[in-house]
Amino acid sequence: MNPAAIFDCYSAYQKTAAMQAAIDVGLFSAIAAGASTVPAIAEKCGASPKGVRVLCDYWTVNGLLNKSGDAYQLTPESATFLDRKSPAYMGDVIRFFNGPIKPFFERLTGAVRNGGCETTGSVEPEFDGWIDFAEQMGAMMFPAAQAIAKLLGNVSGKVLDVAAGHGLFGIVLAQKNPGVHVTALDWPKVLEVAKRHASKMGIADRYATITGNAFTVDLGGPYDVILLTNLLHHFSREQCTTLLKRLRAALRPGGRLVTLEFVPNEDRISPPMSATFPLIMLATTAKGDAYTFAELEKMLLSAGFAKNKLHQPEDSPQQIIVST
Amino acid sequence: MNPAAIFDCYSAYQKTAAMQAAIDVGLFSAIAAGASTVPAIAEKCGASPKGVRVLCDYWTVNGLLNKSGDAYQLTPESATFLDRKSPAYMGDVIRFFNGPIKPFFERLTGAVRNGGCETTGSVEPEFDGWIDFAEQMGAMMFPAAQAIAKLLGNVSGKVLDVAAGHGLFGIVLAQKNPGVHVTALDWPKVLEVAKRHASKMGIADRYATITGNAFTVDLGGPYDVILLTNLLHHFSREQCTTLLKRLRAALRPGGRLVTLEFVPNEDRISPPMSATFPLIMLATTAKGDAYTFAELEKMLLSAGFAKNKLHQPEDSPQQIIVST
Repeated sequence: MNPAAIFDCYSAYQKTAAMQAAIDVGLFSAIAAGASTVPAIAEKCGASPKGVRVLCDYWTVNGLLNKSGDAYQLTPESATFLDRKSPAYMGDVIRFFNGPIKPFFERLTGAVRNGGCETTGSVEPEFDGWIDFAEQMGAMMFPAAQAIAKLLGNVSGKVLDVAAGHGLFGIVLAQKNPGVHVTALDWPKVLEVAKRHASKMGIADRYATITGNAFTVDLGGPYDVILLTNLLHHFSREQCTTLLKRLRAALRPGGRLVTLEFVPNEDRISPPMSATFPLIMLATTAKGDAYTFAELEKMLLSAGFAKNKLHQPEDSPQQIIVST
Repeated sequence: MNPAAIFDCYSAYQKTAAMQAAIDVGLFSAIAAGASTVPAIAEKCGASPKGVRVLCDYWTVNGLLNKSGDAYQLTPESATFLDRKSPAYMGDVIRFFNGPIKPFFERLTGAVRNGGCETTGSVEPEFDGWIDFAEQMGAMMFPAAQAIAKLLGNVSGKVLDVAAGHGLFGIVLAQKNPGVHVTALDWPKVLEVAKRHASKMGIADRYATITGNAFTVDLGGPYDVILLTNLLHHFSREQCTTLLKRLRAALRPGGRLVTLEFVPNEDRISPPMSATFPLIMLATTAKGDAYTFAELEKMLLSAGFAKNKLHQPEDSPQQIIVST
């Protein structure tokens, strides 16, 4: 038996470093722009021919480039997501993964022993990572934001975007629905980013904000739609239920709660991204987790949401629950 | 198109952290010893049930555990390499990968720009990583050491083990051949580890050492066999040729040089481990690389080795060249 797969795990961090370096020097964008040989790519990237050759061969072996003779080409995946000129470019997203949440993984053994991060972790108000997140993760969440807007159909009235971050979920909904007014809730520094995005995307005049903690701040309302995206996984079941009750009370009768989450199947080993997401919560939060639909439904029911429906959008690894 | 493969690269470092945590708490060994459910594994590991559940599901998704209902089982790979009681246990090897060479990868972008590490990197005499390497990498190199001994057939006389590290290559050869006397060359602290291994494996009375730099120290000799394992890749072609000439001069007429290396095919994108190995050399050395057989043969010929034959051992991802 060959231990190659084991060594792949031991050196997996090198893959993140090789991606960071490729994005830093603009390797994929240079190839997209027509450079195909090592000397041409090196010149365009301002990098050494040796470094470029090593990186290009590495990414060929790892499936994000093709090599034919001396010429490298992008694969459909790298052309879509790693060429700076592609509308679906996600190169900047690496800064969050390979940035503020990384130090938590140096202490993962402790988190496994304790059942979570020893501090309040990424849920702290002063965790600067959420500013990076808001700056960089919009691109990653765009397909999910579009899926939510599609799922909701025609909407008008007041929309609350809880822990808005980059703000994209509310903004995309407002762009599609001229009668929508968004209220974005988050920490003050993060809301600066969301407001900037709202201006850039032309809906600033329908964009209000509430600064503070979703568990304690006055939520205003009542709202026609509440967006609860990527927040529950940071908290325990009890904390989630408490928050859901507050949101229920801020919704007008007949209003809808939209929850975007990593929802593992009952087997907890599929689908892959939702099933492995609990590792990130174990490392970076005290009590966070990814909850199955049965677990989420129980919390939602006890918060007063009688009808809860799970949806799997096409272009997102995450799942959506619409509750009334 | 789904960007899941891109995010896998962004978060690949988490896989190394998840492996480190699993090895630290003894997760695979606990399952091997009969614990199969989360509470049982948690108790055996002294870890939290939540942490164990998250890790077990993570490694099920990532192919090193199987899950059936609530019970986890090792796969053949994890049973062979990650159970502390298995003779082929390689859990300790992660300490080198996830230890002394890791900081170099924080500076990989600079290495891509410059064509190598800005310092002399891992080739420095005082690089303490080689003590870790000698302590931990023996397990990883055992199959290659056996392959070399098999390839050489019956040997007697003097064997020089250049940059011996853990010492395993010379030691295994001496174990198989009672007429072999090994001289191990390396830095003093590293040789302490090799001498300990030689004692443990019962050949201390046929084990001499030379401390110092292979490029400058008096090599003694002449030798019947010289073992040159995992050394050339740290150096430039010119440096390699210089070293090979020194070794040629220390070999008796008809003596054999055995080189163990990561030898990529001429396409430089196969086999996978040898083709991606240059990334590690780019990050951790100023001028190191993995050389194709054509490149190595050229250096060997110019150093006076007229006949050079490439071999692919069965149980190793590396390649062996025998030169006379």
